[in-house]
Amino acid sequence: VVAAVHDAVNALLADDETGQFTVTDIAERAGVNPTSIYRRWGSLEALILEVEVARLAEHSPIPDTGTLRGDLLSFARGAVTEIARPGGLAFLQALIGARDLSDEQRVAPLRDRATQFQTMLDRAGTRGEPVLGYIDILDHILAPIYLRTLLGLSVDDAELNIFVERALAPPRD
Amino acid sequence: VVAAVHDAVNALLADDETGQFTVTDIAERAGVNPTSIYRRWGSLEALILEVEVARLAEHSPIPDTGTLRGDLLSFARGAVTEIARPGGLAFLQALIGARDLSDEQRVAPLRDRATQFQTMLDRAGTRGEPVLGYIDILDHILAPIYLRTLLGLSVDDAELNIFVERALAPPRD
Repeated sequence: VVAAVHDAVNALLADDETGQFTVTDIAERAGVNPTSIYRRWGSLEALILEVEVARLAEHSPIPDTGTLRGDLLSFARGAVTEIARPGGLAFLQALIGARDLSDEQRVAPLRDRATQFQTMLDRAGTRGEPVLGYIDILDHILAPIYLRTLLGLSVDDAELNIFVERALAPPRD
Repeated sequence: VVAAVHDAVNALLADDETGQFTVTDIAERAGVNPTSIYRRWGSLEALILEVEVARLAEHSPIPDTGTLRGDLLSFARGAVTEIARPGGLAFLQALIGARDLSDEQRVAPLRDRATQFQTMLDRAGTRGEPVLGYIDILDHILAPIYLRTLLGLSVDDAELNIFVERALAPPRD
């Protein structure tokens, strides 16, 4: 059921990336009952967010290069490429769509992705490298990449290196 | 005409913040010809972006506290409040909506706002304070505030102070 529903959402998003479709449309396409969708996902917005996070996990796997600096740089480069491709803002769009959900409903679909990140950060710790938090990657790497892309400002590779160094710097005095 | 069109867009956005309306709807409401709208703004998306930037300029005026640190902190606090209010993500939504426009069409509506920022940064220079670029404020202050808000993560005042210190720090070695 989960796979059929995800496939249906992906097909509908491919036709209409602004997401102007309903749970009934998804249910019909997936061959399931709308109430099953509401029972499992709670809302259209939470379901779309889950689908977008799954797509991110597929298109932007968390790197494992052997060093934290290498992992972060590889992640940053992948994010720039992914966000610039057609449909690359769908994750942001899904987050905006989910703005009226409760914090719990909004955070639940992100939990697996956060765990993947944490695994990468924990690997660094076992190698004796700095132990960063997920939030450091959001603040220093992902957030500026997203906002610059939205504003049509470029991010070159030298700047990605700077973002990574900022994330790696000791957090504060 | 500009004021009538802006008023019409604001009224339509108040009814439907996802922006599922057309240039014809705007033209009817504003009492102008649709072709006048296309001639001046080029597209629905560019017009909505201009309206959202105007709203930002009204709701989040650029501060002038007498010090750059004070200006940046005041700006950061204002941004957190503004983004958290109902409809506070409309600017991001408009940027996403404008993603298929040319860089020039997307950047033009932002030019006045960028100039306001630059004026604040230039004032700091005349006082002998660090001369920052607009991009430093985007990367260190505005981007993390937006992404954290979208992800349902809080930003407290101590963190806003840290964001400001990062923006003020010497750019790089």
